Amino acid sequence: MEFDSLPRIIGAAASVGKTEGEGPLTDAFDLVNENDGVGCATWEHAEAQLVNQAAQLAMMKAGINKEAVDLVFAGDLLNQCTASTFGLRELNIPVAGLFGACSTFALALILAAAAVDTGCADYAVAEASSHFCTAEKQFRYPLEYGGQRTPTAQRTVTGAGAAVIGKDEHGVKIKRGLIGRITDYGVKDIANMGGAMAPAAAGTISAFLRDTNTEPGDYDMILTGDLGDVGSKLLKDLLKEEYGFDITENHDDCGNMIYDKKQDVHAGGSGCGCSATVVCTHIMNLLHTQKIKNVLFAGTGALMSPLTVFQGDTIPCIAHAVLLGI
Amino acid sequence: MEFDSLPRIIGAAASVGKTEGEGPLTDAFDLVNENDGVGCATWEHAEAQLVNQAAQLAMMKAGINKEAVDLVFAGDLLNQCTASTFGLRELNIPVAGLFGACSTFALALILAAAAVDTGCADYAVAEASSHFCTAEKQFRYPLEYGGQRTPTAQRTVTGAGAAVIGKDEHGVKIKRGLIGRITDYGVKDIANMGGAMAPAAAGTISAFLRDTNTEPGDYDMILTGDLGDVGSKLLKDLLKEEYGFDITENHDDCGNMIYDKKQDVHAGGSGCGCSATVVCTHIMNLLHTQKIKNVLFAGTGALMSPLTVFQGDTIPCIAHAVLLGI
Repeated sequence: MEFDSLPRIIGAAASVGKTEGEGPLTDAFDLVNENDGVGCATWEHAEAQLVNQAAQLAMMKAGINKEAVDLVFAGDLLNQCTASTFGLRELNIPVAGLFGACSTFALALILAAAAVDTGCADYAVAEASSHFCTAEKQFRYPLEYGGQRTPTAQRTVTGAGAAVIGKDEHGVKIKRGLIGRITDYGVKDIANMGGAMAPAAAGTISAFLRDTNTEPGDYDMILTGDLGDVGSKLLKDLLKEEYGFDITENHDDCGNMIYDKKQDVHAGGSGCGCSATVVCTHIMNLLHTQKIKNVLFAGTGALMSPLTVFQGDTIPCIAHAVLLGI
Repeated sequence: MEFDSLPRIIGAAASVGKTEGEGPLTDAFDLVNENDGVGCATWEHAEAQLVNQAAQLAMMKAGINKEAVDLVFAGDLLNQCTASTFGLRELNIPVAGLFGACSTFALALILAAAAVDTGCADYAVAEASSHFCTAEKQFRYPLEYGGQRTPTAQRTVTGAGAAVIGKDEHGVKIKRGLIGRITDYGVKDIANMGGAMAPAAAGTISAFLRDTNTEPGDYDMILTGDLGDVGSKLLKDLLKEEYGFDITENHDDCGNMIYDKKQDVHAGGSGCGCSATVVCTHIMNLLHTQKIKNVLFAGTGALMSPLTVFQGDTIPCIAHAVLLGI
């Protein structure tokens, strides 16, 4: 999709947890909560609270109130996407629920940009969230069990990112969007999501380059959502060997940016909140200060459930790409 | 949203399970599977197979092949929407995953119509599914337990419905769409989803009538997704008492249409597949044969998860409305 009216991100914000606040992007985040409970009785309510905070902060930064927002595209990792539902409930804005696992924020950006570009909405919000504690208990082990994680495992980011999109004269432009296909290379190891998702990212990025007749060098940054260490290396190899594109010079990954190696997070960050919080803050800052002029952002998602894993299924993955620029 | 180019449903189909095939709409369904296992090793694979069947049947009826489809909007009730993911995987079409619980099909229709109307896609598919056995084990009790259901409980429909949307000269028009707000009246009883969802339906239908300056009498049918017996009665009362609209003459509900009272389904059908299968077949037939000329269809969804219920939360609900006509 090419957006003729160049819808813009006119305000974006992220609210994160304690560990994310101890990482290298701490100054970029709008709100670092002192503890991951965010003053709530359950982890699920805490994640919903992050969703609410990020949406409100993004609207404040955009200088609009919630009555002006026509539509929110939002999703998360929880069963039945309840972090988004409960977090957005009190705002009383029309909500289109999305599911794309960790690719959700990219999908939300594309659909919100399309809604604004085509006049379906004057202002739309794109949002996604995740929480280490809700994800850990739902996808892996009870927190109290203290399970050991493998070196290829990533840490689910505690945080929500929201972007307000409108047709104003200022802000980061959303220029193009590409919705991905489901890609399954037969990976079954849920402790290696980066490896599972890399082929989907390679497929989407190469399709974007081919469709737009551009080269990796045309972009100041080619950014993936949360491939982490392992997946990022695989992506670069796959793009070079299968598609003939070399992105080693300008590739980066939100999962590699959000934590410091010293934080013992193994292969990096993951979760819907990973790319949502990094894109809504650090990447926006890089664009606003013209340190980079454009970013090809590919959000990646692993579309399995704990049940499909127990039943021996492989992990289908997807990646959606958005071109952001000033 | 008003769709200027009047995108049309150029092919729609439903694949259903055995119980649905024994109901009053059996002749309308395109494929009635002999048993609910659909030849698969797990109930989840069976639901994915229904998704695949309905998508392929809809494309056959539309006279297009999968290479012509630019985008699929699809979702279901399973954790992480895996019925859609696994069912659509082999089709290799770009997929935007949705979550709206039982309102998903209405949401998919609106977004697919918007994508086609605005030129984001030449052909888009809207799809949703559910399965009695996957839903029962995920949301209620293990099937083997043989739990007794209350009189207000509904039966999750086993089936998938898919609609191909394009700009062709023939087919049912998608004229307008309205994406709903999250509505929570504090209902906590998950054995009374119809009651929980009725206020969301009343809010969306009244907003649609108000925004379009129309009356209930302007529509040959005002159709809800799956309020069932209990929710339908509540909806009519709420619309009359709170909003001053009388829909008693022309209201119907997919959950009340799909089963016969003799089938022991208590308060009617429910699940994403309920409205998807009924709208894609029976309602299309009524429109094609001009027995009715327009339908205001409001899909309703209960946005809780088993976990939020265990944690004592209320049930947030949503309803999305679409105007279909010839």
